Amino acid sequence: MSTKHLSKGSRMPMGNKGKLRLFTNRFCPYCQRVQLVLDAKKLQYDVIYVNMHNKPDWFYQISPLGKLPALELENGDVLYESLIIVDYLDEKYIQHPLHHKDPLKKAKDKILIEQFSKVVNTMYNMLMLTTTNDDNESVISDGLETFEKELNNRQGPFYGGMHPGMLDYMIWPWCERAELLKLFSSYFRSGVLNKNKYKKLMEWKNRMNEDTAVKKTFIDTETHIKFVQSHRAGIPEYDLVNISV
Amino acid sequence: MSTKHLSKGSRMPMGNKGKLRLFTNRFCPYCQRVQLVLDAKKLQYDVIYVNMHNKPDWFYQISPLGKLPALELENGDVLYESLIIVDYLDEKYIQHPLHHKDPLKKAKDKILIEQFSKVVNTMYNMLMLTTTNDDNESVISDGLETFEKELNNRQGPFYGGMHPGMLDYMIWPWCERAELLKLFSSYFRSGVLNKNKYKKLMEWKNRMNEDTAVKKTFIDTETHIKFVQSHRAGIPEYDLVNISV
Repeated sequence: MSTKHLSKGSRMPMGNKGKLRLFTNRFCPYCQRVQLVLDAKKLQYDVIYVNMHNKPDWFYQISPLGKLPALELENGDVLYESLIIVDYLDEKYIQHPLHHKDPLKKAKDKILIEQFSKVVNTMYNMLMLTTTNDDNESVISDGLETFEKELNNRQGPFYGGMHPGMLDYMIWPWCERAELLKLFSSYFRSGVLNKNKYKKLMEWKNRMNEDTAVKKTFIDTETHIKFVQSHRAGIPEYDLVNISV
Repeated sequence: MSTKHLSKGSRMPMGNKGKLRLFTNRFCPYCQRVQLVLDAKKLQYDVIYVNMHNKPDWFYQISPLGKLPALELENGDVLYESLIIVDYLDEKYIQHPLHHKDPLKKAKDKILIEQFSKVVNTMYNMLMLTTTNDDNESVISDGLETFEKELNNRQGPFYGGMHPGMLDYMIWPWCERAELLKLFSSYFRSGVLNKNKYKKLMEWKNRMNEDTAVKKTFIDTETHIKFVQSHRAGIPEYDLVNISV
């Protein structure tokens, strides 16, 4: 299986019938969400890396709207939208459940994931589009405070309890990239990135770093920075990581 | 219980402990989604109508981000985000299930709901913001074609089969408002709104009009137009409908 990101002009890889196949990109945080869940549930799957900047023509046969991540199922059906895929996986494969069984706890976690999307959008604007505005600082600090407080109110080191659950994995890709905000440290005024303010979150991050699923897709900050720089330069370099599958 | 929309300066209504309470607005399609599900599942609930344009201060005690719809649960907890609320209701109250039991069918319906949001956004831009662009026509016609085709491929007159299911109810609020696009009939060039092209959808719409849950929140096109006009004029008139609860 190729570990390079496939671009326009590439051939469509043959699939293994009856096996899950994830169409993904190493630097796409939404794609990472799905891979984290596949790994946390210890599912077997093949991976196809797709160049999002220069998508192969055949990819539109897989995902008609050209959306990544896309998960090809055993029967050939394809699902997309990260949150829809992970909910499907958690319902279909009952081992290592990630969502709370209690509908209310589950709904509250989904609201937190939704709330976190403000942080996600702000990080995207700052890191990828290099647009900053006066709201960025408060959106990031409000987000971190909400999640610090939430962790304080919960049992166990993870949002999911003694093990990472769906909420932990859904916010992780952006937390892995948190150090990138240092690129903007001159922009932040009031110690938003002061780690002492977010003790619980920092402990959580250290523990997440040790999680088996997290380790499988982990990319270090230095490499993330290289990628962001290449993206800003208009030529995203997706093949910065040697991948052994 | 007041049937008027409550504004700044109003008193916070007392709740009935142990009873669901929906904070909603008569002309908000996202709010309507939740009410359709409450009614389809034949749940008992109180309704508080909130003026979205001039929200009461007390509303932020209920919904800290000021979001509508908000559902106060029996234990005082509050949920928001229409799709999160309806999923919660369908999981918590197992009577009259609306989602498919099969995780794959459920996921596919959720993808269609997500796809439909393009139509939703376009309708909002056209009707409320009076912004039009060249994409609007194709977004609306692509959306209608997708849903016409989907209905052709399914058993039964509804997306949910013999009865309306989650997908039917989630798209309904915008279908109820479909005739409003006539306001823009001069804008559409190629017969996008030609009913003959969407025979299945038209049959579906007629049947949906007869559904008990749909009837409970139904507002006729003339009243919708009055509301849109008041909204465009900057003074949304929420109390255009006499409500008997």
